[in-house]
Amino acid sequence: MSQPLTRGQLAKMIDHTLLRPEATPADIERLCREAVEHGFAAVCVNPVYVPLAARLLAGEGPVVCTVIDFPLGAGSAADKARQAEAALTAGARELDVVQPIGLLKAGADREVVAHLRGVVEAAEQAGALVKVILETALLTPAEIERSCRLALEAGARFVKTSTGFGPGGATEEAVRLMREAVGPAIGVKAAGGIRDYATACRMVAAGANRIGASASVAIISGAP
Amino acid sequence: MSQPLTRGQLAKMIDHTLLRPEATPADIERLCREAVEHGFAAVCVNPVYVPLAARLLAGEGPVVCTVIDFPLGAGSAADKARQAEAALTAGARELDVVQPIGLLKAGADREVVAHLRGVVEAAEQAGALVKVILETALLTPAEIERSCRLALEAGARFVKTSTGFGPGGATEEAVRLMREAVGPAIGVKAAGGIRDYATACRMVAAGANRIGASASVAIISGAP
Repeated sequence: MSQPLTRGQLAKMIDHTLLRPEATPADIERLCREAVEHGFAAVCVNPVYVPLAARLLAGEGPVVCTVIDFPLGAGSAADKARQAEAALTAGARELDVVQPIGLLKAGADREVVAHLRGVVEAAEQAGALVKVILETALLTPAEIERSCRLALEAGARFVKTSTGFGPGGATEEAVRLMREAVGPAIGVKAAGGIRDYATACRMVAAGANRIGASASVAIISGAP
Repeated sequence: MSQPLTRGQLAKMIDHTLLRPEATPADIERLCREAVEHGFAAVCVNPVYVPLAARLLAGEGPVVCTVIDFPLGAGSAADKARQAEAALTAGARELDVVQPIGLLKAGADREVVAHLRGVVEAAEQAGALVKVILETALLTPAEIERSCRLALEAGARFVKTSTGFGPGGATEEAVRLMREAVGPAIGVKAAGGIRDYATACRMVAAGANRIGASASVAIISGAP
């Protein structure tokens, strides 16, 4: 990187995230306040809290992102599509959906695309965008590349490294591989274990243009 | 316990479980074969594999159990109900649903019951039963007791300790507390980290009458 990222540049790349199952409405209110205050791209919350976050962020800069079939990706294609439709109706504008990892491992590529395509179609109708979570810690490099091709084919607007609930988070190596696989056409979101400014900058240098983090305020506080 | 549990007695209490997101159709086939061979109560699989398991187990002893809004429980009430209806149509006869943990923590007891009630109503119409997963490792003893009361009120047929994806699995202490809270009217399922015969027997002695495990074959092999 020639120039260090400023606080404002980095904030606009961050999905301010709270997906712990024990998070309460009060926690979501704090998350939304912080997102507005610091100018984050989005808040990322579980589906149960989409109506609350949409109400709190109405007319503000950050949009509402939610997760679909999360964190296992092991629901049916119809489960994914129906949860996506409900989240969009409730006010979500970005959907992070977990790919069906077992089907990917089994080489059932047509089924993987079908699972993703139903979510993308619902999102496109609503003017929303979809990020496909690969869960790279469970995949070989060849599986990461194949996942990227299938996500592109399904019409995803981002590929995302990790759920934050798997056996590992974002790595520079995975981000680089994903950026090479998708080219400049769509985004790469690095998420999982990113807790400080230096790590966030390394992910951007490796090819990420969106960062998912819970420690977002600490991350931007580290900017020069 | 006055008498040690025999292999057959214990097998009939076990939900033979494979919920790893990277599990393939071939893994599910093996799981179903083992369930028939050893006489387990059920197989417990992710929703994407319910049609496959239902086909493989048609006319056999073990039934198909699946998980709803798993493992976070942070979907909407409608998400839970719709996923339950789809799983029942696909052949599931037992549904393990994660309670909305954040709402429970926030004291939103009416909402917790509503989330569970939609799943129970769908199951009752289909002649199926519901287990409510509390995720006890995230709860205080008072929250465990309150969760049990709400699950009972919603019409659940079992309370279950853990998802196996949280910060801790089944403990004798949690099982004992849950059995005291629900009395003899409904079941208690211990799941998460149970890998041998001795541990399974301790859970039964503490009050469990169902065991969820991936290491089921190893567990019954330890019986005298």
